[in-house]
Amino acid sequence: MKYSQTFIPTLREVPGDALIASHRLMFRAGMIRKLSNGLFVYLPLGLRSLRKVETIIREEMDAIGSLEIKPTVVVPGELWKESGRWTSMGDALLRVKNRLGADLVVSPTAEEAFTSIVRGELSSYRQLPLLLYQINTKYRDEIRPRYGVMRSREFIMKDAYSFHTGDESLDEHYQAQGRSYRRIFKRCGLTVIPVKADSGAMGGAGSEEFMVESEIGDNTLLLCKGCDYAANVEKAECKLDYSPRFSEDIARGAAANTPPMEKIDTPDVKTIEELCAFLKTGAGNFIKTLIYRGVNVELDLSTAPGCKNLSRRRPSPGSPEIWDEAFFAVAIRGDLDVNEAKLAAVLKASELTLAADTDVVRITGAPVGFAGPVGLDTVPVVLDQTVTGMNDAVAGALEKDRHYRHAAYGRDFTGWLTADVRTVRAGDRCPLCGGELYEKKGNELGHIFKLGRKYTKAMGVSYLDENGKTSFPTMGCYGIGLDRTLASIIEEHHDERGIIWPLPAAPYHVIIIPIKYQGAVKDACDTLATELETAGLEVLLDDRDERAGVKFNDADLLGIPWRIVAGDKSLAAAPPRVEVKRRSGGEPRLMPLREAAGEIAGAVHRELASFKG
Amino acid sequence: MKYSQTFIPTLREVPGDALIASHRLMFRAGMIRKLSNGLFVYLPLGLRSLRKVETIIREEMDAIGSLEIKPTVVVPGELWKESGRWTSMGDALLRVKNRLGADLVVSPTAEEAFTSIVRGELSSYRQLPLLLYQINTKYRDEIRPRYGVMRSREFIMKDAYSFHTGDESLDEHYQAQGRSYRRIFKRCGLTVIPVKADSGAMGGAGSEEFMVESEIGDNTLLLCKGCDYAANVEKAECKLDYSPRFSEDIARGAAANTPPMEKIDTPDVKTIEELCAFLKTGAGNFIKTLIYRGVNVELDLSTAPGCKNLSRRRPSPGSPEIWDEAFFAVAIRGDLDVNEAKLAAVLKASELTLAADTDVVRITGAPVGFAGPVGLDTVPVVLDQTVTGMNDAVAGALEKDRHYRHAAYGRDFTGWLTADVRTVRAGDRCPLCGGELYEKKGNELGHIFKLGRKYTKAMGVSYLDENGKTSFPTMGCYGIGLDRTLASIIEEHHDERGIIWPLPAAPYHVIIIPIKYQGAVKDACDTLATELETAGLEVLLDDRDERAGVKFNDADLLGIPWRIVAGDKSLAAAPPRVEVKRRSGGEPRLMPLREAAGEIAGAVHRELASFKG
Repeated sequence: MKYSQTFIPTLREVPGDALIASHRLMFRAGMIRKLSNGLFVYLPLGLRSLRKVETIIREEMDAIGSLEIKPTVVVPGELWKESGRWTSMGDALLRVKNRLGADLVVSPTAEEAFTSIVRGELSSYRQLPLLLYQINTKYRDEIRPRYGVMRSREFIMKDAYSFHTGDESLDEHYQAQGRSYRRIFKRCGLTVIPVKADSGAMGGAGSEEFMVESEIGDNTLLLCKGCDYAANVEKAECKLDYSPRFSEDIARGAAANTPPMEKIDTPDVKTIEELCAFLKTGAGNFIKTLIYRGVNVELDLSTAPGCKNLSRRRPSPGSPEIWDEAFFAVAIRGDLDVNEAKLAAVLKASELTLAADTDVVRITGAPVGFAGPVGLDTVPVVLDQTVTGMNDAVAGALEKDRHYRHAAYGRDFTGWLTADVRTVRAGDRCPLCGGELYEKKGNELGHIFKLGRKYTKAMGVSYLDENGKTSFPTMGCYGIGLDRTLASIIEEHHDERGIIWPLPAAPYHVIIIPIKYQGAVKDACDTLATELETAGLEVLLDDRDERAGVKFNDADLLGIPWRIVAGDKSLAAAPPRVEVKRRSGGEPRLMPLREAAGEIAGAVHRELASFKG
Repeated sequence: MKYSQTFIPTLREVPGDALIASHRLMFRAGMIRKLSNGLFVYLPLGLRSLRKVETIIREEMDAIGSLEIKPTVVVPGELWKESGRWTSMGDALLRVKNRLGADLVVSPTAEEAFTSIVRGELSSYRQLPLLLYQINTKYRDEIRPRYGVMRSREFIMKDAYSFHTGDESLDEHYQAQGRSYRRIFKRCGLTVIPVKADSGAMGGAGSEEFMVESEIGDNTLLLCKGCDYAANVEKAECKLDYSPRFSEDIARGAAANTPPMEKIDTPDVKTIEELCAFLKTGAGNFIKTLIYRGVNVELDLSTAPGCKNLSRRRPSPGSPEIWDEAFFAVAIRGDLDVNEAKLAAVLKASELTLAADTDVVRITGAPVGFAGPVGLDTVPVVLDQTVTGMNDAVAGALEKDRHYRHAAYGRDFTGWLTADVRTVRAGDRCPLCGGELYEKKGNELGHIFKLGRKYTKAMGVSYLDENGKTSFPTMGCYGIGLDRTLASIIEEHHDERGIIWPLPAAPYHVIIIPIKYQGAVKDACDTLATELETAGLEVLLDDRDERAGVKFNDADLLGIPWRIVAGDKSLAAAPPRVEVKRRSGGEPRLMPLREAAGEIAGAVHRELASFKG
């Protein structure tokens, strides 16, 4: 392809909102343009690289037997109502009414569509497993789209869905997807951090996120200095600083030497810091109690304190009951923070927020600041597991200006539920090896997830098993964001002059720069381009009437892996020579013109093969 | 690919709403499924053929130097407001509000997006022409989506847009697109009828539709029995049955022998039929006059009768003035019908409807039924050109129960504008050769169109020309519907047993059917499949444990061009043989197993090449 015949509008300047390297470089290299906030256009150069990523993903999906289909981008709102996500998905779901008043959704993901397709076809266990995927447009109505195509509103996603008779078959395909993800990212030249949700447990429900390190990452990762433990902070666990975890009985025993609990006056003491100063103790001896409001709670609350009269519903015959709204007290050691993502997962709540002050007053019978687990029976009390190790603690007394001291778990209070809802931090101990954890910011490129029967039950997808019994298939889902993957390649592979493409994602393999595109130089470049293209390489020939410096700068900016420069002088030598240079580094070297095409084509094919190997 | 490892849910039954062959067969062959009204999912087999069509189109676009880009599917409503189509596009435009209240559009077409992209990049004439295209999802909010993917709401379209300094460059690319369309449809095995809007005139504004004949076509075509004239009824012209067309002077001369015009009583005569009976004359001697209401009229009405005080606006500084609403009288020979599409094009009105009775009374000063061109000065009078040949006609007298007779054009009345606004019918005469015209129903697969400067002016896209003067580029647009093209291939190529794919669009080139997939038959089939795939062919191996009859029926239904059957008997012969048959016809023949792969691969490659040739 001749430069003058394509459309690569390179720029020296960078838009003010381009805060990260990939956004700046994709913009400057003429790969993308902004149509509007969060809506980006791929120009020819950008589209070439995007298609490379797409092809890699397609090849790896086909290789594990996943079958490509193409649902629509706009799907009926009815399907989302069946699954319950029409309401639970929140404002990121772009909802539309068509001219006839029917509800539509511009797909942000496609569990519903795939489940609906399979529902129409599935009758027998013989048809399972069914492994399907699409590579298609998605839309997520981000409030603050940022960082170019790294977090845009419209994007391309590969999303696969699998349907199985049981856990073993699901686990097999889940593992295959995981392996294919590792291959995909390797072929893209990306260093990913696979983050398992369940610290490596085999089988059962599971999920794994594929992260790249990024200073602007959405995710905080906790990594172990001693082993390969990696977890998203939303799910990270850590070793407790005591062990074993106390049962109520053991706790009562441990409290044998604790003085009897007593209520004390704590006038004008509002914060934990003030309380620590007042009682001359550390925050670690205090039980912090917070009141949360959960929405759409799926955890069974039928026997929970204070929940008897709450309104609940069953969205569809097969699905579990859901409590529309419920309040919870969460008690945790005073020096720690509640992890709301973990808490929401424990409660199976679609939304979780701190309760309003008026609700706190109603529930605790006291002003804000005096909540505590002792004697609290108006709501279910969730104890972080750290609290079960506390046998001489300070806690709010459910009265203004009053606290308990010498409160002991098992003796003076228990909870309705004990769970790990603590936010793990750098410095905490690895749950696997006890090593020190440290933090990194990461961006999620891919996610594989065992969904179970949530969608198949809610949407009534069933089949007859080997014994003629009606069963619901169990599902997995597996997504990769293509645009974000492409941007991440640039984040990992660039320098101050521009992009440095890994060969498999490069828009072209070779750029040929004639110092002046005329006479013998033109002939040599044209011949070289033809030879390279005949050998299966993708070649950009910079035939523009620009100064050599401009062409060199643009070549560095575009980041094409191999650069060949042809000028009068070296072509006049005997034998005629061209200058060959890798964008990734190393000195330019002169190569006989006659040998250049053969040598470079060989090197390119070997290198492409090495990414697959 | 083994049949058991893909997902081709064939069916004996047909959904009740599948009214045409392509819908029935795509459904039965497991190519598509319906997600909802007008929303279809491509299953693996359907997607393979859709991709074949996509690749053919992409290759032909690339071959004429059009550059692929990828705008978003969801685009800002602002762009559509700039072009004016936010309002003029009507209800087929799917409008969305996002969570921040911004207007969005799910693209039905992309003039606005491409114009906006070019606006951001264009500065100099040296950058032109700029030739861009996309192959992307579109959505049109059809009220009555029908006929499967032939008229669905969401679909895939190739839409190209070109930007030029002038008409010559535009015409050159317009012609190149036209040639590429002919190649695309030939490669798809489709017989298209190219329909020119302007009966073959070179240069200037123009458009050409590529139609396939279809009993359920949206379009009525008029074709000539004597030459290759083909026109959409919306634009069809025909030879006048007198000639030359009369100027006013000539008309006055022609009226020399006509008696003076006189007003006559026509009591209780309401319809043309009654009038003909009353006056004992034919409808061809009567001037039918209709009152129309036009909306958003771009034709310059500043000097037109009755239009002086109408409200008008200029949407943007560069664009022409638009009259919000204007009424017109249209006079035509009594035996003919007004073609509203042609009339709207003459008036440059975005909407055109017959005026309400109250408006007719106000404008003509008489009850409905007595309109006529004589003395009518409250609105502009548009004369169909047939009226200029009438020198002794009957016309309404703008009074209840009164008509004129002996009215003569040029002597007794003239019009504000004379134009061809007549609906051409089968039996009329070809405007090129005078041959008889006949009608066909057609579906539009593609459309190439010279847009001119409408969008570049409205959206302020400019560049500096060779003399440093600010200019607006002229545009062309070029669309093909992929889904509809695919369905049309099936419409043209099927029989009562199923699809008969032309090789370039076939999902697989060869289907191999083992009578029983075991032992020597299995080995022979596996080897054959590998040999064929190594030779670059796409092979479906029906390894299912089904009766031979089921496999044969499915093979006929799927329509794969070459069928190889392997059974114990013929494989036991010396030399071992397989049975080879073309889906398109001819007898099955036995072929030595050893030679089958080579012979079939050769034939397939030769045939594929012949479609490109």
